[in-house]
Amino acid sequence: MIGSGGEDGAVSERRYVITFGCPDRTGIVARVSSFLADAGGWIVEAAYHTDPDTGWFFTRQEVRADSLPFGVDELRSRFAEVATSLSAESNWRVEDTSERRRVVILVSKEGHCLYDILGRVAAGELDVDVRAVIGNHDNLADITRAHGIPFHHVPFPAGDKAEAFAEVRKLVDEHDPHAVVLARFMQILPPELCQAWSGRAINIHHSFLPSFIGARPYHQAHRRGVKLVGATCHYVTADLDAGPIIEQDVIRVDHGDTVPDLVRKGRDIEKITLARGLRWHLESRVLVHGNRTVVF
Amino acid sequence: MIGSGGEDGAVSERRYVITFGCPDRTGIVARVSSFLADAGGWIVEAAYHTDPDTGWFFTRQEVRADSLPFGVDELRSRFAEVATSLSAESNWRVEDTSERRRVVILVSKEGHCLYDILGRVAAGELDVDVRAVIGNHDNLADITRAHGIPFHHVPFPAGDKAEAFAEVRKLVDEHDPHAVVLARFMQILPPELCQAWSGRAINIHHSFLPSFIGARPYHQAHRRGVKLVGATCHYVTADLDAGPIIEQDVIRVDHGDTVPDLVRKGRDIEKITLARGLRWHLESRVLVHGNRTVVF
Amino acid sequence: MIGSGGEDGAVSERRYVITFGCPDRTGIVARVSSFLADAGGWIVEAAYHTDPDTGWFFTRQEVRADSLPFGVDELRSRFAEVATSLSAESNWRVEDTSERRRVVILVSKEGHCLYDILGRVAAGELDVDVRAVIGNHDNLADITRAHGIPFHHVPFPAGDKAEAFAEVRKLVDEHDPHAVVLARFMQILPPELCQAWSGRAINIHHSFLPSFIGARPYHQAHRRGVKLVGATCHYVTADLDAGPIIEQDVIRVDHGDTVPDLVRKGRDIEKITLARGLRWHLESRVLVHGNRTVVF
Amino acid sequence: MIGSGGEDGAVSERRYVITFGCPDRTGIVARVSSFLADAGGWIVEAAYHTDPDTGWFFTRQEVRADSLPFGVDELRSRFAEVATSLSAESNWRVEDTSERRRVVILVSKEGHCLYDILGRVAAGELDVDVRAVIGNHDNLADITRAHGIPFHHVPFPAGDKAEAFAEVRKLVDEHDPHAVVLARFMQILPPELCQAWSGRAINIHHSFLPSFIGARPYHQAHRRGVKLVGATCHYVTADLDAGPIIEQDVIRVDHGDTVPDLVRKGRDIEKITLARGLRWHLESRVLVHGNRTVVF
Repeated sequence: MIGSGGEDGAVSERRYVITFGCPDRTGIVARVSSFLADAGGWIVEAAYHTDPDTGWFFTRQEVRADSLPFGVDELRSRFAEVATSLSAESNWRVEDTSERRRVVILVSKEGHCLYDILGRVAAGELDVDVRAVIGNHDNLADITRAHGIPFHHVPFPAGDKAEAFAEVRKLVDEHDPHAVVLARFMQILPPELCQAWSGRAINIHHSFLPSFIGARPYHQAHRRGVKLVGATCHYVTADLDAGPIIEQDVIRVDHGDTVPDLVRKGRDIEKITLARGLRWHLESRVLVHGNRTVVF
Repeated sequence: MIGSGGEDGAVSERRYVITFGCPDRTGIVARVSSFLADAGGWIVEAAYHTDPDTGWFFTRQEVRADSLPFGVDELRSRFAEVATSLSAESNWRVEDTSERRRVVILVSKEGHCLYDILGRVAAGELDVDVRAVIGNHDNLADITRAHGIPFHHVPFPAGDKAEAFAEVRKLVDEHDPHAVVLARFMQILPPELCQAWSGRAINIHHSFLPSFIGARPYHQAHRRGVKLVGATCHYVTADLDAGPIIEQDVIRVDHGDTVPDLVRKGRDIEKITLARGLRWHLESRVLVHGNRTVVF
Repeated sequence: MIGSGGEDGAVSERRYVITFGCPDRTGIVARVSSFLADAGGWIVEAAYHTDPDTGWFFTRQEVRADSLPFGVDELRSRFAEVATSLSAESNWRVEDTSERRRVVILVSKEGHCLYDILGRVAAGELDVDVRAVIGNHDNLADITRAHGIPFHHVPFPAGDKAEAFAEVRKLVDEHDPHAVVLARFMQILPPELCQAWSGRAINIHHSFLPSFIGARPYHQAHRRGVKLVGATCHYVTADLDAGPIIEQDVIRVDHGDTVPDLVRKGRDIEKITLARGLRWHLESRVLVHGNRTVVF
Repeated sequence: MIGSGGEDGAVSERRYVITFGCPDRTGIVARVSSFLADAGGWIVEAAYHTDPDTGWFFTRQEVRADSLPFGVDELRSRFAEVATSLSAESNWRVEDTSERRRVVILVSKEGHCLYDILGRVAAGELDVDVRAVIGNHDNLADITRAHGIPFHHVPFPAGDKAEAFAEVRKLVDEHDPHAVVLARFMQILPPELCQAWSGRAINIHHSFLPSFIGARPYHQAHRRGVKLVGATCHYVTADLDAGPIIEQDVIRVDHGDTVPDLVRKGRDIEKITLARGLRWHLESRVLVHGNRTVVF
């Protein structure tokens, strides 16, 4: 299998990541930090956010696993009480970074995002377990398999796509992935898949949303004569290209750029924007709040 | 009058600027450059663009005035023949940089764009003649007058604004300005003014168009949860916020930014984007082609 | 006095801002947040940082003043105990946002940074008290006074500048300013002034440090043929252009840009970089740690 | 062989590219454009630059091959006279885009730049002929070969590297490549190789030069506390990291970023900056002038 090893020397120390959102009030930080301090928890990273519009509070805390006298299950069980006392209801999670993140990637014909992710994984920069790549074309099968990753070809007929989507769903769900990445997958997910993968399906749209929703955004951008083109990484919802935005970026273009030039320049931004959004999602840095995200 | 002088040491050598657009064909560059060479013209800057979609050719040429044995009127008269032979029709201009550019600025209550332009003029960075500032409020009168520039207060009633616009038009047109700058002027120009000032009225819209057309774009941006906010400098047309784009830029924001934060961060981008667009316009660098611009 | 009012609608709610740095260990967050929670303190904004290299912990907390049953002096006195227990020693502060920030600005001949700051203050965007502007030239006196701010002209002779610096020091120190802004002040501060204003003197250097230290950085940049020019806002130390960096930014240039073009383009970045750095400093967002900064 | 095809729909029309530099004087543009017009040459893209400091003139012209009644050899032979008449001496070239560009890539252990280039080639975005990859380690052999490209492992001993460099030179020179890409090749080329590959050897340095020349620039950047890290694509000369700069870019970092974080974030900029510089070089867009470049 292709891979040049974790050459950047980053240490992967085991950590527990606590995230939650709840109605804001006095004493939340004290409640959570005292809970951790009482157990001897060493907080490595902590971030807080209060949304004044909705009166909602959010936090993400990274704790060194070896600083606690118990494991992740016990932490979860104990923290449940804290969460309940803060009315966090189902809006809390405790993750263990030693559980390697599972990812399934959906592609069509365009390979730049797939090449980019595979390169990052092989270089040890993105330490995730790509369980499978599924394509409605098969031209990306070879590169996928060269990286030692299974590739599934699921052709999509022009008419009724229900069967093809059912097949994709089966292939995805057997891995129970932390992220389903639509890496320029050109098919629109049916509502039931948006629902099933809610908060886990990540798309890269090749425009600076909400500009140029839908098909052929670079053509739309060229027609409007914009001076920057962009890309948007967002969670997939049933509302096309309208899900919560995780990350966006842009690149400068000018009157000399044809549509193929926009496509080429835009790809660099698509790749990077998707890679950032995916990393943040897998590190539990993204909390969804209505149609907006908090990115810690 | 306030002004710290042309401290950047830029020499303002007199130049003639030729711009035109015409159907593309073989030999245009040769025709124009031979015309100039035959007269001894020293080309200081030359730029060309061909639009493959429309088959249109554009150029901008800066010639040292002292390299030609005749003046701008003679140049114009001689170049007219060249333009006709290239079917440039009315799409050509010959400008003389020694004619100082006249500018009239329209404002409402928000002063950041006005402060910025006045500062640039006073610092000698933007060498233009601001003939007047017209506001539908009067809170920017003092700063304007401190810079030695007349300020006219034209109140806009809530209902019928025809009279107020007529007054504004009169105040603007008496200066025959090269640019009418809508520096966060919050009134929508009536079609007849869009027409009268076509290609000269420059607006700064506080969003990355075509996103968030119309009122309160920062509120719209906040609601959508975008990760960058932008500004767009464009020519005013009768179609709201849909005129040819001259320049755009963006700035990063995050979940912690409230609407007032977006407003504040966005202002820095508005100021710079407007200043760039205005400079390019006044230097005859912007050629309009349908709803798009070529910026040389 | 010139000023268009606080038009952005930002509410300036009174807050206390606690900042400190101390050796990292378990329970710091709990200690601080419990202290605040016990007093009923409503934390509006909280940020933490641990530096793994030096084992140092930093935090900044904003508390609503009206959530505490006592005033800032009592808060300071009570928090002193917490700080001592965490070995924060002299590395802690409690600020009251209702105390308007006092600023003195030093200038030379170039006005773009001064114009920018005055514009922000007049527009209500930067709510600070500019007590005085001091220039070794007098060309910026008029604009300063038009804004209702005293201007002092202190000429600097070519040879011994000790007397001039003594005069500047006297004029600055009588205001006990929170920030002394070197807004393109082209004189090098003597070590005793660097010392006296340590952590309060903010400079804008017109390069992306550590590139192009010292004189005429745009000329250096042009000679090297760089493709971006930058600006650096940093605290002044006795080591020229080597103090802790608060903020940096860059702008794209190309082969067509002459030195005056670099100067002009660079100014936009200088203005914005200085404005950001100054704001963060005045909001107590910048904690110095050795020669680096933590910017919350 | 891996490759998803030229999916961006860009048409690769055959063109001749003329570039040259010569002392500036009146009539150069006319001379060149008349030469082309007389032969019926259809200019698709034309760019000019005059350097006022050195009085030097530069141009790049793209002509449709099918618009000329003769081939590239005849064009070269005819253009030689024009070049001579303009004193362009050896500073001119006529390239044929139908000759596929040959590239050899040198690598060490870090694979991100190699993965990126191979991905672009496989996706049809960078239409070049990668003839070989040469590494002083062998961990990138598999990915290279999976793309159907030969990989040569040339170990570099700690002491005398002359023999290894001789071997590399032999492996490179047999392909007479248009570009020798040092894609994070961590060895310093000996002067004779810098000479032999002058104007063809392209390096990516992981800092915003001239900051942080030499080894471990991200460590240097972290120590200095900069707020942006960058990358520089430049021609290799005998003077370490001081060759003519083709392209640079930066990315924002903050106090929370450790050295491994800088490494990771910087890689995205390295990849993109190298890809842009390489593309421009291969398209004959980069003209070297002393230690600076003109990039058309």
